[in-house]
Amino acid sequence: MTAQSAHPEPPDLAALQRRLAAFAAARNWQPYHTPKNLVAALSVEASELVEIFQWLTPEESARVMADPDTAHRVRDEVADVLAYLLQLCEVLGIDPLAALAAKIDRNEERFPAPDGP
Amino acid sequence: MTAQSAHPEPPDLAALQRRLAAFAAARNWQPYHTPKNLVAALSVEASELVEIFQWLTPEESARVMADPDTAHRVRDEVADVLAYLLQLCEVLGIDPLAALAAKIDRNEERFPAPDGP
Amino acid sequence: MTAQSAHPEPPDLAALQRRLAAFAAARNWQPYHTPKNLVAALSVEASELVEIFQWLTPEESARVMADPDTAHRVRDEVADVLAYLLQLCEVLGIDPLAALAAKIDRNEERFPAPDGP
Amino acid sequence: MTAQSAHPEPPDLAALQRRLAAFAAARNWQPYHTPKNLVAALSVEASELVEIFQWLTPEESARVMADPDTAHRVRDEVADVLAYLLQLCEVLGIDPLAALAAKIDRNEERFPAPDGP
Repeated sequence: MTAQSAHPEPPDLAALQRRLAAFAAARNWQPYHTPKNLVAALSVEASELVEIFQWLTPEESARVMADPDTAHRVRDEVADVLAYLLQLCEVLGIDPLAALAAKIDRNEERFPAPDGP
Repeated sequence: MTAQSAHPEPPDLAALQRRLAAFAAARNWQPYHTPKNLVAALSVEASELVEIFQWLTPEESARVMADPDTAHRVRDEVADVLAYLLQLCEVLGIDPLAALAAKIDRNEERFPAPDGP
Repeated sequence: MTAQSAHPEPPDLAALQRRLAAFAAARNWQPYHTPKNLVAALSVEASELVEIFQWLTPEESARVMADPDTAHRVRDEVADVLAYLLQLCEVLGIDPLAALAAKIDRNEERFPAPDGP
Repeated sequence: MTAQSAHPEPPDLAALQRRLAAFAAARNWQPYHTPKNLVAALSVEASELVEIFQWLTPEESARVMADPDTAHRVRDEVADVLAYLLQLCEVLGIDPLAALAAKIDRNEERFPAPDGP
């Protein structure tokens, strides 16, 4: 069996959420994973993304992925934000995709498109 | 056709990302959606989650979903964080699921489980 | 006695810190003012400042004080950040002015000025 | 003249604000110091404070200054938050002490003390 066949399909969100839960459980990290602590960690990771962009002009910010080191850093922080968001959803019993679908529905009513239906 | 058959399956991340992109395009919001602005907005939404929890004890924080109004607020902010994260990934060409899978792989090497394989 | 004579001098930092401590004590808020909660509140207020600027261009951001309502909002959030910073310093026994003076000293060594002494 | 006599009094806020402005000017950093960038940097530093506390219990958070290394880190981040707040006030023409005094005045009306005057 090759490494490739071990990952025959792209990961889905639910599978990643299960991997994260197993990862925390194997290290006995659940006592630290209160909702309060997880939202703090989420906001810290979001700020680490901000830190990459804080002194850039808008134009420079649009080119961050052209530099391989910065691109890696951005992907790494995006992963951290998503990881804590999924772990928060896990401990609170929230379905993030359903929450986002509902929010887009509400926003479509709240901000009608200029030429919308 | 019933409302239920119109949404026969739960939304997937890629479909929600396309809805968000279409939503922004229909309102001509793309000029505002520089990576720099989107990470700022992401961090602001993460802080709105923190605001819900800031004065709670760890125990109270574990019970936030018991109150319907607070539960709605938490789901709403989770949706906002995910929305800006997906829009950031869209403008930067990042696959959030691949980024998270790669990060979990790295973390499994970095933090070996006590009884891990 | 006139209003002016009631405030004969501009407030100093230590006097404001004492007013904040008395304000919290009179309302029995000290149990909520753990260092952990105060840093969370500080970061939430900092994000409320970011929210004012998140969709502005750099040029627009330089003109925020020209609009009286926005100017009031900015001053209000600046005050909130400073209030939580002073309350954090109070509970941790930190002298914020000494901490900043020491930091500037270190930064002057770390980042020598191009034409510096 | 001894080093001690060179600093005969504790630094005041206005003097530190002038030192920060001179420091940035000597390094030609002013173009980066737009209000938008400074509020982003402020929020990043506030999050670095949160990071120190994110996994601590409320009780552990009250004891952070007992460890010299952590105490140094906390003072350092407090200094960074104050530095960016003062630089923001400098570029926007805000008097932070007056803003805070006005805010406490408003809060005293908004949240009357239980046994207040």
